[in-house]
Amino acid sequence: MVGFTTSTCLVLSLAALSGTRTTAFQPVARPPASSCHSGTPSVSGPCSTNTRRHPRGWVMAAAATTADAHSTSRTSSPSAAASASSLPTFDLNKYLLDKKDAVESALDASLQVTSPQVAKITESMRYSLLAGGKRIRPIMCIAACEMAGGTAEDAMAAAVALEMIHTMSLIHDDLPSMDNDSLRRGKPTNHVIYGEDVAILAGDALLSTAFEHVAKHTPSHVPAERVVSVIARLAASVGATGLAGGQVMDLECEGKKGVGLEELTWIHTHKTAALLKVSVAAGAILGGASAEEVEACETYALDIGLAFQVADDILDVTASTEALGKTAGKDLNMDKTTYPKLLGLEGSREEARRLVGEAKAALGRFGGRAAPLLAIADYIVERKN
Amino acid sequence: MVGFTTSTCLVLSLAALSGTRTTAFQPVARPPASSCHSGTPSVSGPCSTNTRRHPRGWVMAAAATTADAHSTSRTSSPSAAASASSLPTFDLNKYLLDKKDAVESALDASLQVTSPQVAKITESMRYSLLAGGKRIRPIMCIAACEMAGGTAEDAMAAAVALEMIHTMSLIHDDLPSMDNDSLRRGKPTNHVIYGEDVAILAGDALLSTAFEHVAKHTPSHVPAERVVSVIARLAASVGATGLAGGQVMDLECEGKKGVGLEELTWIHTHKTAALLKVSVAAGAILGGASAEEVEACETYALDIGLAFQVADDILDVTASTEALGKTAGKDLNMDKTTYPKLLGLEGSREEARRLVGEAKAALGRFGGRAAPLLAIADYIVERKN
Repeated sequence: MVGFTTSTCLVLSLAALSGTRTTAFQPVARPPASSCHSGTPSVSGPCSTNTRRHPRGWVMAAAATTADAHSTSRTSSPSAAASASSLPTFDLNKYLLDKKDAVESALDASLQVTSPQVAKITESMRYSLLAGGKRIRPIMCIAACEMAGGTAEDAMAAAVALEMIHTMSLIHDDLPSMDNDSLRRGKPTNHVIYGEDVAILAGDALLSTAFEHVAKHTPSHVPAERVVSVIARLAASVGATGLAGGQVMDLECEGKKGVGLEELTWIHTHKTAALLKVSVAAGAILGGASAEEVEACETYALDIGLAFQVADDILDVTASTEALGKTAGKDLNMDKTTYPKLLGLEGSREEARRLVGEAKAALGRFGGRAAPLLAIADYIVERKN
Repeated sequence: MVGFTTSTCLVLSLAALSGTRTTAFQPVARPPASSCHSGTPSVSGPCSTNTRRHPRGWVMAAAATTADAHSTSRTSSPSAAASASSLPTFDLNKYLLDKKDAVESALDASLQVTSPQVAKITESMRYSLLAGGKRIRPIMCIAACEMAGGTAEDAMAAAVALEMIHTMSLIHDDLPSMDNDSLRRGKPTNHVIYGEDVAILAGDALLSTAFEHVAKHTPSHVPAERVVSVIARLAASVGATGLAGGQVMDLECEGKKGVGLEELTWIHTHKTAALLKVSVAAGAILGGASAEEVEACETYALDIGLAFQVADDILDVTASTEALGKTAGKDLNMDKTTYPKLLGLEGSREEARRLVGEAKAALGRFGGRAAPLLAIADYIVERKN
């Protein structure tokens, strides 16, 4: 059964993940790893109190205690939450921080200057790759792999690749000939520091290194067929029907009148959701999921991807540049078609909730093992940056 | 034994491959496929005359008739060539045209507009991918695969991927913030037609589609381990120690005084030779070559890659813009460090010959099966565009 409770474990706000504060939480010191959690990856031991604090509390009664996480997540009323207080809880804060630490280490190790000749391009690649961020795609990849029966190590190379691809898309989208943005994650964008030429090449190198990394560093006990399948999907998420195609359509629609919900959804299905979809699918495949399980993961991720974009559009209107770590109000200033523009702010929030509900339903078959991805679904629409 | 002879089969100049004419040959109608050749991929039937026409004749007595193609290739004196006239000949013209036809068909099929939303990016990708060119990398990949015991079909997906990667590098290198070139293969560059933003994204999409294509379209009877290995090498050829890293160093050295031979060789080993190296290595791996055989192929390709660049530098000085299909004299105008600048024109020609000799030596172990790659080695330094 899934409910939302506060916990003595709840000591770090999710905002701390991206280095910025929200008004909702006061980040405090992190407790010893053993204080609440066994260190196992997905489901923590019992350490909840009975005060409900949903959805910003991010401590869930573990879905592991029920065979149908979805059906019960729909009934997380105060009473349900109260009854969940005696159950083992899932601490998303802890989960995300643990996974983020592991991902950061892997990212740092993935790109090293190996000779003076490659110093400049490698530094440029590292500048953007290690600029922080929530690392939500790699974490979702790992979560899906563990949910399917694999380990974090099985998915780590793909997780790193996902962040390389995501970073490439940010570097290129920020270029003067595209979104022309000079601020990203609170820091000057790559081309501002290294010049347009190096920024373009650093993006190219990150994109190709992503595939190299998966091919070379996925553990050898993972069957090569799975690696090939993951690479095919990763690559498709960037091409004409992925990030790049979505961005071309996005640029075409910029300032264009009469862009409707269908067109906007197409753009974000390809520009945003495609990479989240492959994040979860790749993890599931590496973990040994069946074709049907992979399909369920993709349904979840597509919904979450769209919800992520709806939330992004909402944040562009409601959050400050400081909180976002990137220029706020940009969509409005550029007269971009966004969900708030088409559906209004409240309508957009409603759409995000609908998508998250659908996403969670798709993971019903995984029972309690879906706890991290279920919690991440909520996190994505409730985040502050 | 390898010698160079003319042939009644010699009816098309190599220049016809890239759609431009040289002064050396008069392209004439192509004979029926059956007139001289059986249609087998590498070595033709006997159809040579005894008039020597080396090196521009491109019809070689087949290396298949000797166990040591290299050692005999070094003795291609007029008398050796005359004695070769009675041997089966290898018709490089025919070989290149046949393979180019197959590659062009595969390239055309690899990128199709699948929905109105992806029309623009797909057209932009196709514009550059199908703009002609010699297709020397895909052909070398196929030649290496056949040399190692595989078929053209085994290597075709990788061959297409190589041309996608090569095309991406051309689109991005031509951008205003890089080489700022408006002419490529006799046509306006991608960004001139589609704008900088779409050109960057088309490059990104081509790069990722390359990996998708190998992963999805390599025949299923080829072991997945080989596909993973090929993808790892393809990807490495683009990253910090490949095309992108080489281009960053190249940009850094532009107009810089005191760039020496070592630095120049580093740039071209990574910017040019890396992709040729993986072209041959990928083909060999897909065809089932041993680790030692792959290594021999890489030695060949690295030498050929450098020779290719030396030849390019020579052509920049000696050829016309019309013959090149791109702006001639550009290196000189930009005060770029080139081989002719460091070694002089004759010294550069000598260096190219030395590299080609070394390259051919590396393929000695393959005997007659190396005929196409041996002939291509000569072609690369003698080409006119």
